[in-house]
Formats: sequence, structure tokens, C-alpha cells
Amino acid sequence: MQAIQLREKIAKGEFNKSTAGFCQGNVQANMVILPKKYAKTFEEFAKKNAKAIPVLEIIKDSHYSTLLAKNANLLNELPSYNIFENGKIIKTVSDISEYYEEDFVFFLIGCSFTFENSLVNSGIQLKHVAQEKNVSMYNTSIKLHGVGEFEGEMVVSMRPIKKDRVADACVITSHYPNMHGTPIHIGYPEMIGIKDINKPDYGDYIEINEDEIPVFWPCGVTPENVLKKIKLPFAITHNPGHMFVSDKKDSDYYV
Amino acid sequence: MQAIQLREKIAKGEFNKSTAGFCQGNVQANMVILPKKYAKTFEEFAKKNAKAIPVLEIIKDSHYSTLLAKNANLLNELPSYNIFENGKIIKTVSDISEYYEEDFVFFLIGCSFTFENSLVNSGIQLKHVAQEKNVSMYNTSIKLHGVGEFEGEMVVSMRPIKKDRVADACVITSHYPNMHGTPIHIGYPEMIGIKDINKPDYGDYIEINEDEIPVFWPCGVTPENVLKKIKLPFAITHNPGHMFVSDKKDSDYYV
Repeated sequence: MQAIQLREKIAKGEFNKSTAGFCQGNVQANMVILPKKYAKTFEEFAKKNAKAIPVLEIIKDSHYSTLLAKNANLLNELPSYNIFENGKIIKTVSDISEYYEEDFVFFLIGCSFTFENSLVNSGIQLKHVAQEKNVSMYNTSIKLHGVGEFEGEMVVSMRPIKKDRVADACVITSHYPNMHGTPIHIGYPEMIGIKDINKPDYGDYIEINEDEIPVFWPCGVTPENVLKKIKLPFAITHNPGHMFVSDKKDSDYYV
Repeated sequence: MQAIQLREKIAKGEFNKSTAGFCQGNVQANMVILPKKYAKTFEEFAKKNAKAIPVLEIIKDSHYSTLLAKNANLLNELPSYNIFENGKIIKTVSDISEYYEEDFVFFLIGCSFTFENSLVNSGIQLKHVAQEKNVSMYNTSIKLHGVGEFEGEMVVSMRPIKKDRVADACVITSHYPNMHGTPIHIGYPEMIGIKDINKPDYGDYIEINEDEIPVFWPCGVTPENVLKKIKLPFAITHNPGHMFVSDKKDSDYYV
């Protein structure tokens, strides 16, 4: 399926699950929507924390992407959105047209799904893809660099990797610096403040086999965790794992 | 100190410790010496296990290096040698002239000391270097590909790396495929058959701090472990950590 076809299905309400493993080879993006008055500070915050929040495109004065997918409507071409009020998710919806305000600024943010194709092509098995599940994601104790009202801790995605391929996974993902790049941590969940690896804070639980090591990458869900912490009056994000599937190719972001 | 000066000191018996951290920027090599009748099979064995036994130079009909250090005498320009008979170390000596036979074949093998300079230059602390100790090395349960009489398990070197630099260490060492390249394993010593991380089988004990993860690279001491297992009638190796310091630069092997 082409990305444009998937986005059409999503807009029609015919696809509402995680986009993990779909349109392989196409860049997927996280999204954060903020009222204009917070946008400049958030942009700075993202720059200071680019490994967790790598901004690919900023859209002002419109709700259509230009760079990642020409004319894609950001109000209904993602499968699921979270509406935030004062740091709480008040609703999860598949269309945000009724919430739209002209002063909205849309941030499209790099996603680790982008490098999954490269991992799989190198013979590294990814169980959440094989099982058509969402990736496991966790809140951590890794502190972000604060800017203005924005501060908090990093969210990570976790993939169990066979022990003899962990170093390869580091090398492969290093070629995607705009998609979180190398792992932020390897093994030992407790060292980054994850108390129970069997209970992800977002996404699905994926079993870690005896010959596998949990490998953690910075995650584009980080802004959602920040919004909760700082209790911003209003914001919209994608629902974790339910990404914006763009027309850009993974290889466009290979460095 | 230039490598040629260090080798002169070694030949005179004025330097007899681990070469770890000396002549930084110069390639250091492991050495295996075998009677000619075993050399061809060992060469094949090394090729099949190139990550553990990357051969840099083979010297026949002479005991002088050509490629790694022109005219360096391999009989006394390493600080320490182990003499093997039937798989047992019968003696550790600083000069092997009296054991020399004309049918000896010398194998110089890549060493992970080569990439340590790149790690340190990237701000990754290496405690064994800072403490002027030998690196920690361990026998493992990682099976080698057998060829003829040669078979056995891999030896690894271990460096404790700060948790947020482990992925960087993988990427940096991937540029030295002839010097063991990327780690073979990260964390969890028991997964590769290491029962007590506090008791290295070779080299010095290096403490692992709370914010560090033990990272394991294939090690050029692997052939020594193989010789012990298969009880070869006669062989000589360098004494682990007491390497051949060559005139080649690390950057010559950067890929």
C-alpha cells in the first residue's frame, strides 16, 4: 500500500490502529500541535533535546504538510489523536477538525519506526512488527534540558534484540540521526528509572526472550510526557504508535 | 615514545609490562607462532573466525615483520611470551630466541587496543588505561567455527562504559573491522558464559561502577584458549596484554 492510499483510508476512518510496520520504507512522524504562543519556546526546547525531539517540519498558518507529504491534511490523516487540557488527555479521537484553531502550529517529529526497515533488512528481527503490535514505550528518569515552561523526562521505545546483533543495531540506527539515531540505553531498565519492564507506559507489551537484550531509543512520545508534567492548558498530539505516514523515504534521511 | 623506541627498550629487557595505553595511535598486535605443519589450517580457522582472529600479517621463512614494522624482531620485541606444550603454558619468557625453529610461522593478529585511542578521543573513559592496568579478559561460551583440529570458544575483552556512551562505543569501534570491530556482547556477562565478572581469566580486574555497563569485544587471546583446549604439541603466543607495538597507525586501519 502506498502512503497516500493509507492516509486516504485513515481519513475515511477505515484504518485506526498502530502504523508500525505499514508502508515500509516510508518515514513516519510524531506530531505535536500547540497554540502559537507556546510554539517558539517549544521549538527551542526541541532543538536542545534533538535526540528525543528531532523536528522534521513545522507548519504554521495552515493544517497541511508541505515537506513530508504535499497537501496531507493533518486534521484527519493520522489514525488517532490525543486532546490535552491542563496536562490531561480529555479525549482520543480520529479527527480533530472540530478542535482546529487558526493559530495552531504543527510540529512533525522524527520517529524510530523509520529505521526499523533497515534493521529488518539487516536480519534483525523486530517482534512487534512480526506480531503486528505497537512498539513498547516507557517513561524514564532521563532528564531533558528545560527551556521556558517546557521540562521533564525522556520517553523511550524498547525493542528486544538478539544478543549478538545489539552492536549492529547501534551502528545501523546511527545512520538516522534525525530519527533518534543510536540507542540512549542498552539493557538494565532500572538504570534509566524503568521499574517494571513488563508494563510499558505506552504501546504494547513485547516479551524479552532469554537470548535477547532490551534496547532503548529516545521516543517522539517525549513531548506528550512533557505536556502531562507541565500541565499546558491546551495541546494535541498523535496517539503513541499511530503516526503520520509521510511520502518521504527512509533513505531520504539516511546519513 | 615512538614505537621503535619502545620495541628497543623491550628488546633490551627494560620494559616488561602490559602495552595497554602505550604509543597511543599505533596499532598493537597479538601474536601466534605455529610450526609450519599447523599453519595452513590455522590460517583457514582464523578466516572463518575473523571477528575474533583478524590476521594482519603472516611471516614465514624469517622472524622479522615486514608489513607492521619493517625488520622488527619478533623473537624479543614483545614484552612477554607464553611457551605452550601440549596445551599447557610451560614457561613465560621475555625472549624466545632459544626456542626458534626455521619452520615457524608467525601470525600477527588485530587487537582492540587499536581503537582505544578513538574511544578516548571521543570522551569515552577507559579505566584500565587511566589506571595503567591491563584490560580484563574472559573465556566465554561463544563457539568458534571449527576447522581441522582447531576449535573452541571465544575470549573477550571487557571495558566498563558509561551507560549513555555504550551505543557510541559500538559506532566508533565499527570503523575498525580488522581490530575486532563492534562489541560481540553488551551487559549480562552470564549470557555469554561468564560466571564471575569480578574474576577475569586474563589481565587485570577493573571495577564496574553503578552508571557503567560491561561491554565485550572479541579478543586476540582467543587462539591461546584454543591451543589449551586442543592441546597442540607446540606453540608460542604473546602473553595477553603484552602486545607487539607496530609502526602502523590506528588510522591506517580505519574504514
